Amino acid sequence: MRILGIDPALRVTGFGVIEVQGQRLHYIASGTIETGGTEIPVPQRLATLYAGIREVVELYKPNAASMEQVFLNVNPRSTLLLGQARGAAIASLVSDGLPMVEFSALEVKKAIVGTGRASKSQVQEMVKRLLKLNKLAGTDASDALAVAICAAHHRELNERLHQFR
Amino acid sequence: MRILGIDPALRVTGFGVIEVQGQRLHYIASGTIETGGTEIPVPQRLATLYAGIREVVELYKPNAASMEQVFLNVNPRSTLLLGQARGAAIASLVSDGLPMVEFSALEVKKAIVGTGRASKSQVQEMVKRLLKLNKLAGTDASDALAVAICAAHHRELNERLHQFR
Repeated sequence: MRILGIDPALRVTGFGVIEVQGQRLHYIASGTIETGGTEIPVPQRLATLYAGIREVVELYKPNAASMEQVFLNVNPRSTLLLGQARGAAIASLVSDGLPMVEFSALEVKKAIVGTGRASKSQVQEMVKRLLKLNKLAGTDASDALAVAICAAHHRELNERLHQFR
Repeated sequence: MRILGIDPALRVTGFGVIEVQGQRLHYIASGTIETGGTEIPVPQRLATLYAGIREVVELYKPNAASMEQVFLNVNPRSTLLLGQARGAAIASLVSDGLPMVEFSALEVKKAIVGTGRASKSQVQEMVKRLLKLNKLAGTDASDALAVAICAAHHRELNERLHQFR
């Protein structure tokens, strides 16, 4: 079972791919999709994001995708831009039939660190430990791996529940 | 020269296709893409929207696309959802290399009615007249046709400027 985590944003989108075998998690890949600066028109940047996710899906062939629910910015313009980036990313994931789940930031932190009040760097450290990485993944890639791990835990839970039903 | 206008939203997205020959505008097609109610998960609805626009583009083969700039809702949740719908729509349009332009609501009203203070129904009436329709197009389709006509006018203007440069 292979899970792709995505942390979408208009400028830099993080992605992380993990393989789940029973209780074991294996790191497969992670990185970022960058769409360039504000000198490039938004539609073009959304196309870059869409195509970038397409490439990741084709390369790593995940069975499911996972994304963090969004932090609503106080600035409506930022919220709209983030929404557009998410829309392009989600369309890219699901238009090929890839199942997708969303988790709140709280759920992700709980799944990774055990508490919803964990800091960014604690999440980053635990992602490194859980996936036996040699060094910390970059912030965007780490967030994407975290939401993929969160999905793996929930899947395990679902399977367990299923087993005893 | 064929122009596709899109009025995107999560629930109902309007589309309108016009053909521009010099100063003449011809109506080709219009309609709506509906993604179903709130019982359907957002990612699936974005996939429906993405695929719907794809179909329209493949069927009518426009040379350019046009979209109205967005009204920022006071509710950040609504802004995010609208942003996601726009992101999926824009990705669908441009990921195939279709050029896209955006216009403000003011620009669209000015182009169609001649004043930025025109009402919705005035725009609808003028769209009917400009395209020689037998009856009013539905609101969503009419808005999409209006933004396509606006793009046609701007293109004409650009060509004229070019001519005298």
